[in-house]
Amino acid sequence: MKIKPECAICIVRQVVDAVKEISKEEEVQFKLVSSTLSCIKEVYGPDAVPAWMGTKVHRYLKRISGNKDPYRCLKDRANKLAMEYLKSIEEDLKKYKDKPPLERLRYKVKLAIAGNVIDFGPYSTDVDIDRKLKETLEGELKIDHSRELFQDLKKYNKILYICDNAGEITFDKILIEELKEYCEVIASVKGGPILNDATLEDAKYVGLDKVVKVITTGYDVIGIDLEESSEEFLREFERADIIIAKGMGNFESLTEYSIDKPIYYIFKAKCSPVAQFVGVEVGDNILLKY
Amino acid sequence: MKIKPECAICIVRQVVDAVKEISKEEEVQFKLVSSTLSCIKEVYGPDAVPAWMGTKVHRYLKRISGNKDPYRCLKDRANKLAMEYLKSIEEDLKKYKDKPPLERLRYKVKLAIAGNVIDFGPYSTDVDIDRKLKETLEGELKIDHSRELFQDLKKYNKILYICDNAGEITFDKILIEELKEYCEVIASVKGGPILNDATLEDAKYVGLDKVVKVITTGYDVIGIDLEESSEEFLREFERADIIIAKGMGNFESLTEYSIDKPIYYIFKAKCSPVAQFVGVEVGDNILLKY
Repeated sequence: MKIKPECAICIVRQVVDAVKEISKEEEVQFKLVSSTLSCIKEVYGPDAVPAWMGTKVHRYLKRISGNKDPYRCLKDRANKLAMEYLKSIEEDLKKYKDKPPLERLRYKVKLAIAGNVIDFGPYSTDVDIDRKLKETLEGELKIDHSRELFQDLKKYNKILYICDNAGEITFDKILIEELKEYCEVIASVKGGPILNDATLEDAKYVGLDKVVKVITTGYDVIGIDLEESSEEFLREFERADIIIAKGMGNFESLTEYSIDKPIYYIFKAKCSPVAQFVGVEVGDNILLKY
Repeated sequence: MKIKPECAICIVRQVVDAVKEISKEEEVQFKLVSSTLSCIKEVYGPDAVPAWMGTKVHRYLKRISGNKDPYRCLKDRANKLAMEYLKSIEEDLKKYKDKPPLERLRYKVKLAIAGNVIDFGPYSTDVDIDRKLKETLEGELKIDHSRELFQDLKKYNKILYICDNAGEITFDKILIEELKEYCEVIASVKGGPILNDATLEDAKYVGLDKVVKVITTGYDVIGIDLEESSEEFLREFERADIIIAKGMGNFESLTEYSIDKPIYYIFKAKCSPVAQFVGVEVGDNILLKY
């Protein structure tokens, strides 16, 4: 999908957030934001893909600031918080052990979205996280292709599960364990730090590598850019019978390709451009076969 | 006061909002936003004053788009809605007729802030407006210099009341009527269209000119720029014993001057940079003698 005019607001907000992680000095923050405005102007336009525009802007910011991983602290915090919160719903999870498999699958998809929902940013409070988690788990999937996914899981053998953010991957782990009951699963994380996206470091921290083979996309790209992916990633992308892609960045970028196999997108529609593209409301939770 | 690094987000948001009023065509919207990013980069920096930065950016947008008054429709809507909502609290207002004068003054200050609070933008609903109005009227003033204002009203003779937005001026009218019980009042609106600020057209529409002499600042400036004000405005600014300034734009800009007479700022702290400068929380309602 392509950006909408209002995506200018979101990318500037991201830059300000990142810059505040890079330096606590306002003078430095002003310089970095100002310089990055030129970069935004260069990549902003009706043909831009949101995730790829973000890649260019965040790479530019990393280069001019000399900070290779501005979100490192936030990612660490997200991983820790996610692991703590997962403990608090262990009992709930156990209840689903004896439920019908489709129901259990749907619950774990919602759990994976909850990981995508939770804002582990510096201003979120515990109360917020608890509430958002609960809302997502108890709410409905606005687009619910869990039945189709369930059928495909029984029909096919190999899944490539494309992860999104740090923290969130702790919740993905639960869904991946469920998927493994049906198929061989390989998970991918980013090949280098970009935004708050999960890298190999995060996958190891939350123990994702203990339950599934984890590969990287090869590069620091938001979402997926098939022209800028490692051979290993492209091989697994080709080999997989089913692609499962988490989060908006993967949706924004993979919808630029025609993919000749079942692809499932799991995310919360967090902004109006994405929600409109899908045909849902902002805030809706989605499991979409595309 | 000066801008903070995050003010980049707000000015871009304003530009996107304005551009959507100027054209419904996305291609045009993209071009206008893109072009205005250069202007923002030029005026953005640690020495920029929020209101004046806004002036430069909104003037640039008016020039390149050829639209002299992008917010005209929104201002019309704001005026109409404000007049309707004022009717709904007529009974409440009557109750204050026999209350102690200080209490009545404080209530009408809160009413004037309610006008500043209400978002008459295209996405606000009636429910929102009712709720926000009620919250402001029933809530406290976080900084409450109403006692000082009350004393000054009895001590002095002449007030210059500097208005802020369209719509909001309907509520200012009520406070101005109260102030007239003590002093001679002159009200000022903008000399030309800028953002959703009230102009002479709005003052006439809501009948502000029926209760008070209304002058203009002379130019299309957000807040006040004493170097760019009409002789008439400067004369009244000089002659007044008390200045009452509504809204954040007037606060942001007038705090750049040392003013040798009592000045009262009436506004809701809608963003973190302003709230921090004042030493309050975002959302707090303020009647501040500066």
